[in-house]
Amino acid sequence: MSFTVAVAGASGYAGGEALRLLLGHPEARIGALTAHSNAGSALGEHHPHLRALADRVLVPTSAATLAGHDVVVLGLPHGASGAVAAELGDDVVVIDLGADHRLTDAGAWAQFYGGPHAGSWPYGLPELLHAGETTAAAQRAALAGVHRIAVPGCNVTAVTLGLQPGIAAGLIDPLDLVAVLANGYSGAGKALKPHLLASEAFGSAQPYGVGGGHRHVPEIEQNLRRAGAPDVTISFTPTLVPMARGILATATARLRPGTDPATVRAAWEAAYADEPFVHLLPLGPGGAPQWPTTAATLGSNTALVQVVVDERAGRVVTVTAIDNLVKGTAGGALQSLNLALGLPETLGLTSNGVAP
Amino acid sequence: MSFTVAVAGASGYAGGEALRLLLGHPEARIGALTAHSNAGSALGEHHPHLRALADRVLVPTSAATLAGHDVVVLGLPHGASGAVAAELGDDVVVIDLGADHRLTDAGAWAQFYGGPHAGSWPYGLPELLHAGETTAAAQRAALAGVHRIAVPGCNVTAVTLGLQPGIAAGLIDPLDLVAVLANGYSGAGKALKPHLLASEAFGSAQPYGVGGGHRHVPEIEQNLRRAGAPDVTISFTPTLVPMARGILATATARLRPGTDPATVRAAWEAAYADEPFVHLLPLGPGGAPQWPTTAATLGSNTALVQVVVDERAGRVVTVTAIDNLVKGTAGGALQSLNLALGLPETLGLTSNGVAP
Amino acid sequence: MSFTVAVAGASGYAGGEALRLLLGHPEARIGALTAHSNAGSALGEHHPHLRALADRVLVPTSAATLAGHDVVVLGLPHGASGAVAAELGDDVVVIDLGADHRLTDAGAWAQFYGGPHAGSWPYGLPELLHAGETTAAAQRAALAGVHRIAVPGCNVTAVTLGLQPGIAAGLIDPLDLVAVLANGYSGAGKALKPHLLASEAFGSAQPYGVGGGHRHVPEIEQNLRRAGAPDVTISFTPTLVPMARGILATATARLRPGTDPATVRAAWEAAYADEPFVHLLPLGPGGAPQWPTTAATLGSNTALVQVVVDERAGRVVTVTAIDNLVKGTAGGALQSLNLALGLPETLGLTSNGVAP
Amino acid sequence: MSFTVAVAGASGYAGGEALRLLLGHPEARIGALTAHSNAGSALGEHHPHLRALADRVLVPTSAATLAGHDVVVLGLPHGASGAVAAELGDDVVVIDLGADHRLTDAGAWAQFYGGPHAGSWPYGLPELLHAGETTAAAQRAALAGVHRIAVPGCNVTAVTLGLQPGIAAGLIDPLDLVAVLANGYSGAGKALKPHLLASEAFGSAQPYGVGGGHRHVPEIEQNLRRAGAPDVTISFTPTLVPMARGILATATARLRPGTDPATVRAAWEAAYADEPFVHLLPLGPGGAPQWPTTAATLGSNTALVQVVVDERAGRVVTVTAIDNLVKGTAGGALQSLNLALGLPETLGLTSNGVAP
Repeated sequence: MSFTVAVAGASGYAGGEALRLLLGHPEARIGALTAHSNAGSALGEHHPHLRALADRVLVPTSAATLAGHDVVVLGLPHGASGAVAAELGDDVVVIDLGADHRLTDAGAWAQFYGGPHAGSWPYGLPELLHAGETTAAAQRAALAGVHRIAVPGCNVTAVTLGLQPGIAAGLIDPLDLVAVLANGYSGAGKALKPHLLASEAFGSAQPYGVGGGHRHVPEIEQNLRRAGAPDVTISFTPTLVPMARGILATATARLRPGTDPATVRAAWEAAYADEPFVHLLPLGPGGAPQWPTTAATLGSNTALVQVVVDERAGRVVTVTAIDNLVKGTAGGALQSLNLALGLPETLGLTSNGVAP
Repeated sequence: MSFTVAVAGASGYAGGEALRLLLGHPEARIGALTAHSNAGSALGEHHPHLRALADRVLVPTSAATLAGHDVVVLGLPHGASGAVAAELGDDVVVIDLGADHRLTDAGAWAQFYGGPHAGSWPYGLPELLHAGETTAAAQRAALAGVHRIAVPGCNVTAVTLGLQPGIAAGLIDPLDLVAVLANGYSGAGKALKPHLLASEAFGSAQPYGVGGGHRHVPEIEQNLRRAGAPDVTISFTPTLVPMARGILATATARLRPGTDPATVRAAWEAAYADEPFVHLLPLGPGGAPQWPTTAATLGSNTALVQVVVDERAGRVVTVTAIDNLVKGTAGGALQSLNLALGLPETLGLTSNGVAP
Repeated sequence: MSFTVAVAGASGYAGGEALRLLLGHPEARIGALTAHSNAGSALGEHHPHLRALADRVLVPTSAATLAGHDVVVLGLPHGASGAVAAELGDDVVVIDLGADHRLTDAGAWAQFYGGPHAGSWPYGLPELLHAGETTAAAQRAALAGVHRIAVPGCNVTAVTLGLQPGIAAGLIDPLDLVAVLANGYSGAGKALKPHLLASEAFGSAQPYGVGGGHRHVPEIEQNLRRAGAPDVTISFTPTLVPMARGILATATARLRPGTDPATVRAAWEAAYADEPFVHLLPLGPGGAPQWPTTAATLGSNTALVQVVVDERAGRVVTVTAIDNLVKGTAGGALQSLNLALGLPETLGLTSNGVAP
Repeated sequence: MSFTVAVAGASGYAGGEALRLLLGHPEARIGALTAHSNAGSALGEHHPHLRALADRVLVPTSAATLAGHDVVVLGLPHGASGAVAAELGDDVVVIDLGADHRLTDAGAWAQFYGGPHAGSWPYGLPELLHAGETTAAAQRAALAGVHRIAVPGCNVTAVTLGLQPGIAAGLIDPLDLVAVLANGYSGAGKALKPHLLASEAFGSAQPYGVGGGHRHVPEIEQNLRRAGAPDVTISFTPTLVPMARGILATATARLRPGTDPATVRAAWEAAYADEPFVHLLPLGPGGAPQWPTTAATLGSNTALVQVVVDERAGRVVTVTAIDNLVKGTAGGALQSLNLALGLPETLGLTSNGVAP
């Protein structure tokens, strides 16, 4: 069941990663590669690592250039994909790597992004637990056969996977959540801004989007409500650290009084035991938990999760590592696309990272 | 008022940084440099950056080699400095860069470190607020003229400086604190362990000491109680990120209901307005807060602090950046030593970092 | 034509990378994983990125544990593989990632490595030009059907690929070669040595093996003589720079007087035009050459090459980028294995890297 | 003998480093800080590490704003300082951190930079050997009391210091020189270019200015001719590696036949034995040379040099490490300024780096 696929925004980081993964997908035939200001240049100038497509010339992004493919991947700035998608036929499978179709609540969209709400699409996080579930089935069902997919924000994926088992099982207080993330720079895209220069980044850690204003906040809230929280309050702080890829999300929540650690561990184990791409790391020799590292996920669609109970603080502490461009963006997109097309969910994706 | 100073553990990172700063201190005359397994080798083999001392030969650490100096700096492994210090005369000023004399509570020592408690010494954080203070004076008074100084843990300094104004002013709930830190590798010392190898560190973020067991937890609690909290509960997670130096501490607390953001900002401003080494960063053009970065503190004794109110989450979020080896260790030590000796507090220390 | 494969030294970097690639090889079935001091532990403790093998337990390295596989990959310290290989049957395909069987000259072995020479095996660099060749065929023929393969040193691969077209075409003086390399730390292995610690590596560049003593020198000489040089003199300096993977080799040679730049370019183009994994980068817009970067090769079996003539200096300058663990080690090994087994040369290998 | 000093281009990396060092110079009083597009903003927005000047507002660069200071430091783009300097009085000491006044040969200027030649100024490399010298005295004399100083290019300083003892002593062939450098990104300035983005830089090494076209080539040639070479031919390749600061220059030359290694070492020892900021590193235990690392020079005005003879290749190999912004730019400038003003040469400069 091969399919043709066009990628809009192919010269950016998200578009490039989608292409890297599509090159390894046995059913994908890569068609048009589109760009905005880079139209007319060869892909090899922007992504020299994609040898197989180095000579392909970028064409302008438009409904015309994207037409005629079975699948269209949109790697466009926030606010730009709504208009493009509206011109693509209902029979085309459109995957939006951007934010335009993630939020169901138009008010939250207006508050955090501004401008008109493009509406929400089926949400491309197959592992999202719905209220009452122990393992994720409803979200997979919601993605089967669809023609529109909104891929989650990368930070959102990391924090949701870390916390949702405790929310769904009712073990943690959803009104007292804190998440602090160490983020690689590729999550900020290829923008030419001073704080993204290499000289500024080496040897430095710097926060951004602190204090409740980050656009991923309402999306995390939306997910955790879907997982069963009546309401959600989360303090969320991403931090740029000197690496190109990777998110390490430390997310903590107040434990319901009287919950013992074994119950906690059992909830996370149940949620992810059968997941192909989300792994609760084991307790190692002597019972010491093995901790996720971002390096272990580089290039793979894997999320590594660990959870412990801090009895002194009365909190659950979870740590989740993903590659922001794979599980956090293009890999999650392909996984959801496989579900939409009725292909095996793991087709063309690997759980093995590139390390060291 | 010049003084002679010996440094024990001179081949380690803390000892080396003490030497770097002492080389720039106008009153210090550097005497014996001691080591354990590296005794007999030249300092230049271990610290090629300390050109002025490159040919100095390390001697074994003992009461005999350390004797006869006005000041002794101990850069020894936890548990080792108690015995050495006990053999040094009461007239010698002894500065312990390690943990042995930080905790006042023998029970906390036993629980987190084990072994016999060496007792507590005057605590070398001049900016520590005592209950009821708006600006730090009592701690400075407590350091004047002393002959023993326990230098705080590097993470402790960062978290304490971030949170204490809110604790002292009663604006935040000390029972609902969360701190997550991005840490440079030098904080882990020069130990030959696989997870400290360069190949493992590039491109990776990895947590350690998660879940309440980190030895810096009781020390943070001790400081915040000193600042006025009846009791303290903190979830504390340090994270190694790919840089040699620096701590970026994101520390958050539930805001007392009804507290407005201006009151919060005023408390932090009051606490640090007159501090030579702790700076609340300004709100920039348009009111956007300027955020601390670790790069801006490299090599300096500066702590950069920012604080905002996340009204959606009902929390105060503070971010503090320090150089773990300077303000977090050897610089804090020298600052306290100046107070102990009656010298100007800032002598030999710089607030200007090395960047980019 | 599936085959079973055992990997000796599976907990090291070379062994780990061999496993990563074998997991993506459609015909490989992974059997025994062996180790020395790490025997008894799970692979996941050493290579958390290899999710598919995380629970596999390492067994001791011995002829007994390696027996019964079609293919054995040896990722052992120099000097250790000779003895192990001698105990494996002639019908087994043995691939030595180490140095023991690379050099044909026992004298060079004795001088650079010391100890008894284990003899030389077919040399696993399919792209190696033989004297008189424009494109590599003889070396491929020499690998077809063999049961023993010596994988080249990673630096050797980079320097050989950069210089050999000029040697084979007689355009450069083989007695006046200089190569300086920027190397990632994984090339130094997982050894617990102070200069390999992360804190020492960040922000630093440091040379090693300077002055003619590096073990890769006689191997480069051997290759370039094979490519047609009557004799070879090369100054060779590798330099550790702050990255985990990658080699950027700058290799320069005196141009034969009267040779024009077009002739130079033509020689390199001819050598690599049909190579699946070695690419001469194009001249970009305006004729400016596109330069190799190590990031563009990460995780791929690709070598990127550029060549220019410095007319002022009368020299050819070549720059070659590879991933030291892939094209430089495990990928080159798999490519050669495919030739040995009569499989398509590119099977299970990718030319697309993981970037940024 | 205190002096007032203005810095033009204060928001750039060179200007910022000049300020950092001037803050530590006991005789400097910092006056106007000027900028081009950043005029009107606070210095703290651009250099948050310069706490002591954080609130100083940048004024436009012009003869008027720079007037009235004893010393003016120009940290301007190439081609811009000539015009500004022409408007400053002859009684002002003007230090050009840029290239405009480095080259004595107008033809070389035209070929490598283009545009009108601003003429040459006394050259700010006090350690530059003149033909026939064993240790540098003539260049120091040439800087005493001057009112114009052209600061060398950072790469030029590293390569010159590495090779000149062999040139001056007639031990190496100046027509067969090769230099390859590992460079930190700050040398490329603060320009917003895609290849300078952090995401592109992590994990990557990339060459630039390959093939004889780099503007530092004629300046190296000029220096080595001054040191005694009748003519100079050098192949020169800088390479960006993932660090903010530092240059590690590997420079090699054919040894004059019959020269023994002890003679080589003696020449380098003689040249630098009395230099305060250039150090030939020792042979360590067992005779193994200690190698320069860039980390050991960070923040200091030190150049670390090592030299060995590669007898197999018949070449001398030198390795030199400097901090490109200190000894390579602002530190070298201050050192020369001290000479110009008749102050002690080392005043306000340190030979001790910040490491790890």
